[in-house]
Amino acid sequence: MLKIALAQMNVKAGHPDYNTETMLQLIKKAKKQQADLIIFPEMAIPGYLLGDTWEQTAFLEDCIAAGEEIIAAAQNIIVMFGNIAVDWQKKNNDGRVRKYNAFFTAQNGQLLQPQNMPYPFAIKTLLPNYREFDDTRHFFSLQKLAAERGQTAAELISPVQFTVRSRTYQAGCLLCEDGWSDDYTLAPIELLAKKAPLDLLVNISASPYTLGKNDKRNRVFSRQAAAAKTPLLYVNNIGLQNNGKTVYTFDGASTVYDRQGRIVLACGAYTEELACFDLETLEERAPLATGQEPEIAPIYRALCYGIRLFLDSIHMQRVVIGISGGIDSAVTAALYTQILGPDNVLLVNMPSVFNSATTRGLAQKLAVNLGCRYMVTPIQEAVDLTIRQLETTPIQDLTRHSESHFTISSFMTENIQARDRSARILAGAAAAFAAGFTCNANKAETTVGYSTLYGDQAGFLAALADLWKYQIYDLARYLNAGVYHREVIPQATIDIVPSAELSAAQNVDEGKGDPIRYPYHDYLFRSFVERWQKAAPQDILEWYAAGTLEQEIGCAPGLIQQYFATPAEFIADLEHWWNLFCGIAVAKRIQAPPILAVSRRAYGFDHREAQNGPYYTKKYRQLKANLLQAK
Amino acid sequence: MLKIALAQMNVKAGHPDYNTETMLQLIKKAKKQQADLIIFPEMAIPGYLLGDTWEQTAFLEDCIAAGEEIIAAAQNIIVMFGNIAVDWQKKNNDGRVRKYNAFFTAQNGQLLQPQNMPYPFAIKTLLPNYREFDDTRHFFSLQKLAAERGQTAAELISPVQFTVRSRTYQAGCLLCEDGWSDDYTLAPIELLAKKAPLDLLVNISASPYTLGKNDKRNRVFSRQAAAAKTPLLYVNNIGLQNNGKTVYTFDGASTVYDRQGRIVLACGAYTEELACFDLETLEERAPLATGQEPEIAPIYRALCYGIRLFLDSIHMQRVVIGISGGIDSAVTAALYTQILGPDNVLLVNMPSVFNSATTRGLAQKLAVNLGCRYMVTPIQEAVDLTIRQLETTPIQDLTRHSESHFTISSFMTENIQARDRSARILAGAAAAFAAGFTCNANKAETTVGYSTLYGDQAGFLAALADLWKYQIYDLARYLNAGVYHREVIPQATIDIVPSAELSAAQNVDEGKGDPIRYPYHDYLFRSFVERWQKAAPQDILEWYAAGTLEQEIGCAPGLIQQYFATPAEFIADLEHWWNLFCGIAVAKRIQAPPILAVSRRAYGFDHREAQNGPYYTKKYRQLKANLLQAK
Repeated sequence: MLKIALAQMNVKAGHPDYNTETMLQLIKKAKKQQADLIIFPEMAIPGYLLGDTWEQTAFLEDCIAAGEEIIAAAQNIIVMFGNIAVDWQKKNNDGRVRKYNAFFTAQNGQLLQPQNMPYPFAIKTLLPNYREFDDTRHFFSLQKLAAERGQTAAELISPVQFTVRSRTYQAGCLLCEDGWSDDYTLAPIELLAKKAPLDLLVNISASPYTLGKNDKRNRVFSRQAAAAKTPLLYVNNIGLQNNGKTVYTFDGASTVYDRQGRIVLACGAYTEELACFDLETLEERAPLATGQEPEIAPIYRALCYGIRLFLDSIHMQRVVIGISGGIDSAVTAALYTQILGPDNVLLVNMPSVFNSATTRGLAQKLAVNLGCRYMVTPIQEAVDLTIRQLETTPIQDLTRHSESHFTISSFMTENIQARDRSARILAGAAAAFAAGFTCNANKAETTVGYSTLYGDQAGFLAALADLWKYQIYDLARYLNAGVYHREVIPQATIDIVPSAELSAAQNVDEGKGDPIRYPYHDYLFRSFVERWQKAAPQDILEWYAAGTLEQEIGCAPGLIQQYFATPAEFIADLEHWWNLFCGIAVAKRIQAPPILAVSRRAYGFDHREAQNGPYYTKKYRQLKANLLQAK
Repeated sequence: MLKIALAQMNVKAGHPDYNTETMLQLIKKAKKQQADLIIFPEMAIPGYLLGDTWEQTAFLEDCIAAGEEIIAAAQNIIVMFGNIAVDWQKKNNDGRVRKYNAFFTAQNGQLLQPQNMPYPFAIKTLLPNYREFDDTRHFFSLQKLAAERGQTAAELISPVQFTVRSRTYQAGCLLCEDGWSDDYTLAPIELLAKKAPLDLLVNISASPYTLGKNDKRNRVFSRQAAAAKTPLLYVNNIGLQNNGKTVYTFDGASTVYDRQGRIVLACGAYTEELACFDLETLEERAPLATGQEPEIAPIYRALCYGIRLFLDSIHMQRVVIGISGGIDSAVTAALYTQILGPDNVLLVNMPSVFNSATTRGLAQKLAVNLGCRYMVTPIQEAVDLTIRQLETTPIQDLTRHSESHFTISSFMTENIQARDRSARILAGAAAAFAAGFTCNANKAETTVGYSTLYGDQAGFLAALADLWKYQIYDLARYLNAGVYHREVIPQATIDIVPSAELSAAQNVDEGKGDPIRYPYHDYLFRSFVERWQKAAPQDILEWYAAGTLEQEIGCAPGLIQQYFATPAEFIADLEHWWNLFCGIAVAKRIQAPPILAVSRRAYGFDHREAQNGPYYTKKYRQLKANLLQAK
């Protein structure tokens, strides 16, 4: 019998000391449970998302020294773990020192070398370089190493062999992407299986949560285990890691697939776990049922966990939230209150003359329902002062000895209000409350920059900025029904028309509100960002002309006809939003707070973008001319 | 005789229509000058820094259609150009369609295929994936293609052959990084030279300006031309491209190296040029002298060009600049005035009770010297209102039916002032002036977050945020002496102690100012960011202990002893700044405006970072303990 412990640990990126201590504790615990083998995730010591910290020699040395501590601790237990490996004698292609994303196996204080490897560790073969992944920037792949040695990766890839109580095991060592080989010319699992009859496949990962990824992994990994007729152990870390602008939760969800590909063991999401089992009796286990739950449930878990760990990481215990009576701020308030408790959440309503009694009442009701601290800080006096000061201060022309004055328009006043709320009141209140203030923006607003810089675009974290408006509504209902089990978010907040209430044109009592028509635009915008091959106006117009648009983007049928009487109207709307998406919205996203990622494509480091302005292809322009002429 | 025209064109990233039109015009022009061959830069049609626009199928199709127009225009002239090439039947490793960064050669409306290539174009072999470069994210390399075909890159690499007036030429086609092979296991130039006796080497590039890069290129490319005994033609574009947070100028500086490696022709920096010459008479040309100029001169050119094109790209003709009487805002004002003219620049001085008559006078003097429009908008009334409002508005505890109140500290008041200036006055004035307002931060402040978010950290562009404080002073003197030829920036502004003047503790008249001691900290901070292997506290402390710190980081000798009486003081200072650099400063940079890059490592997309908090290695902690114990 081989007793194995999967160590689903919290990896703190950039803190090898913390991670090493965690690992040493878990090794002790596993030994107490008589485990023969403990498996830690990929990059368990340094963490995975580190930016260019990989260029600090001191940090590399520290990680390697920490790795040596772990190797030394492999006494009476075999330890598998991920760490950075450095060959100080060789170079990466950027001229810096050679770094591998490596899989170490230690026994009796010594590393076990995979048979054909030139180093005493396995090397990540497939290096992801899409979405938020930058592996090729820092790590040298097995293929490159093979090419350098005049060999092939297939020759070098080989299992690691270890002996426990006189029985010898062959383990295939995989690092994360190595198990996702469909788009590569090389399949590490197949190559490993050719080398020796494998007793187990081990995939150590540092795999961030995104919506739907676990289902896909279960399909892919089940198939692999079954094809190799070998149990596959997937060990992922938990925790929060970031690339600056984009913040990822790691949900763990470490899983054991038996030789038939059945899921026979699965760790919980976002929990530290040491899961022990006997390799030889996996077949006797009943396969786990995969639970059904609404799509918003895992998103809620990711948000709660992500916000909590983000706050921890910046040592913040309290928050200030501007609440308008609308849906986005109400959901934000309900979320943070769930995480921090009502005493640590200060809700601030900041009415101007444009805020209705309706929404002011809803804000107060929300505060009462949540039991948070509450402030009402009107902004009209300050806004009036700003306008007066801007309009009366002379603009001097010192050369011509003349003066002029500004006139402040209604549009300018809208932005003055938004900035007054965030940069004057919320930022000041946050400092006084020893807190940060939140950005409550959703993904639709973020897509087209429907926000004011240094106004509602500001905050220490944009926790909802990867959720479309329909997901915000889903989350509101879920918070009431599934989390609080009562109506904390007033139903009227869910029912009211979404509005910024920055001018008389946005009067909610008259049913006026945002220019974004979410039931359609949520889906249009999503096609610009999240679609596999990103949609551009040319695609949209082709689908529109073919009558397949609603189907292609996934919105409700009939909306296009309902919203747009003519192709000219449709095109004007499309170009309006595309111009914003590629224009001012990029500028706003550059200065946006960190975004908590939940979707399969989040703004920031995941969806990379340049401030290049909108572009319309030749084909688009022709199609547009045809459509407009036809009318 | 082969007459060649180098087309140093302005490439607008993401605007194939504009670029194609430029190319067609230049082809016409070259034909008028009887050129046999015209050479355009790398990615001349799509542009180079595009973020994930490469995932838009419509955009790819448009670039390819544009390429076909260029190929069709290759009549009575050979056209070499860079463009994206797509193989719709194959995949990249991310599963998306196969894309190559390609070098096309067209004659008589047809592409000329390099002999051993499976496509009618040459493929970029070395894909840079460091600093701001993300080539591997989007493009499939020649090595990967070779591996997929069971061949080697060496087999596929081959010159393109063309015939002009019955003479046949062999040209080695290189794309940018292909000419920088020192850190790779493959040297494309050497492989090409083995295939055939080459008549010319052509390196088409999209190479952003950074300080010192042209000198290095001249050394490397001269050596290559001489080694291959072949003239090397380097064609780079001009223009401005960006990756969102980091904005790059492309200086062109296209250069011809003769077979001895001598520089015999060089295009100007940042100028559109069509440079014609006869290949066979290059040897008869006198080598160009490389001019000597102060380091700040090319930086000034990059800033001027970059700011001008950035403003153009966002259709902004006017700016608002907050001026304090200090050096950073004065340099910003002098720069923008030079670019836009005084009528399009509004300078705003925003005194509070802490601003001295000295600096207020200097601000006014600067405005008079530059002839800009000028406003004095005191902020005290609004700051007082904010403090009063925050202190008097009750914080309601709705559950316990109790109230409390905030107390605003002096530190909070500092930030309230900074936000009042930017988010209230400058943002409002900018809207009214149909302008943007500038961020005047330098790189030292940016490194440690010595700024207020939504305050002096705000703006549409941080043009000086890649310059250390000493470079700001150099630039001030250069603007007066070399650009304006008079004292536009008052000498007193250069001489005064740098200060934020946000509290009585920063009284300039008493010689009090910033906590950053620039003569040392500029260099310390630079070692964290720009050093080849980034320095961490461990390195700094090792150098300090060894007495080599000043030499290692490049600051003036004697400073350490002057500033720090004991190791304890030195260590406290080091940890103070390191904590900020890895902590709150990262959070501020995430929300900072775009940064105009000039150094060899700029913040943003070039120096990537995660918000992971400070870390001290075990070795550092030991060394620190030893040093503190020794005292």
